[in-house]
Amino acid sequence: MRQTSFADIHCSLARSLDIVGDWWSPLILRDVSLGVDTFDALVADLGVSRGLLTTRLGQLIDGGVLVRSPYSQRPERFRYELSESGRDLLPILVALTQWGDRWVAPDGPPIRFRHDCGEMLESEVRCAGCGRALVYGEYQAVPGPGGRAARGTAVIAGILAGVAP
Amino acid sequence: MRQTSFADIHCSLARSLDIVGDWWSPLILRDVSLGVDTFDALVADLGVSRGLLTTRLGQLIDGGVLVRSPYSQRPERFRYELSESGRDLLPILVALTQWGDRWVAPDGPPIRFRHDCGEMLESEVRCAGCGRALVYGEYQAVPGPGGRAARGTAVIAGILAGVAP
Repeated sequence: MRQTSFADIHCSLARSLDIVGDWWSPLILRDVSLGVDTFDALVADLGVSRGLLTTRLGQLIDGGVLVRSPYSQRPERFRYELSESGRDLLPILVALTQWGDRWVAPDGPPIRFRHDCGEMLESEVRCAGCGRALVYGEYQAVPGPGGRAARGTAVIAGILAGVAP
Repeated sequence: MRQTSFADIHCSLARSLDIVGDWWSPLILRDVSLGVDTFDALVADLGVSRGLLTTRLGQLIDGGVLVRSPYSQRPERFRYELSESGRDLLPILVALTQWGDRWVAPDGPPIRFRHDCGEMLESEVRCAGCGRALVYGEYQAVPGPGGRAARGTAVIAGILAGVAP
């Protein structure tokens, strides 16, 4: 079990991590997205213990990114699929995968993706407004309505307070 | 300490998570990117124990995403900054933050970002080739040169083997 909850930190990154921020959860979502969507198949693919997988699947369902539906009544068996928020998360996991391809894949990418446009996918995070690739240093953090000076943002809140929204 | 290493799984998502996949590491990178870049400031902002922070900073340095430089000799004090791979990672953390804004921010976004184009940032993962937003279901995974049928990809490898590269 996790030692601490990040859900009470007033930061959307912390709250996202509270749902998908351990090592196994994103891999479970990766597997489900690729069609590895039953309990036994997940165990076989990931080599994870059944107890840990049960816990993680429960957290992902509680976090709203996975839903399950029965495909067998006796014995009771479920198939897992991505919810709307889970599908919204997948492109970000693809971007994180391709970050790994760039920086920690000495043998080349283990998996590549072909986009429906016909090109092999090279993912980029872009600004929806101007369409340019987002580059570190070319954006500035400003306070939002949900911000608080509390644990997890105690110093950041002060930094942002000096920034005009 | 972590119970298992994901670095030996032939998947770039697993290897990425091996560097930044616990709860604290992305928040440390977030803080450093916002100027919270000394040990004491990180402790004050995150409310994390000094021992855990020492461990996580060491992992982020070993993983190549953070570098440190001394700003005081006596006592010895360091400032942390993002490496090139760390800067490459930040837009993905921004995208994950904004996913949290969409799905787990009942009071509204705690932090927003203003892009240098002048617009408030709404990040999107896009295909660099065609420029369209990446949507779950509009891309297909295919095997890459670094793939293996081993723990963490045991079943996926078989699925991908049926896909023309």
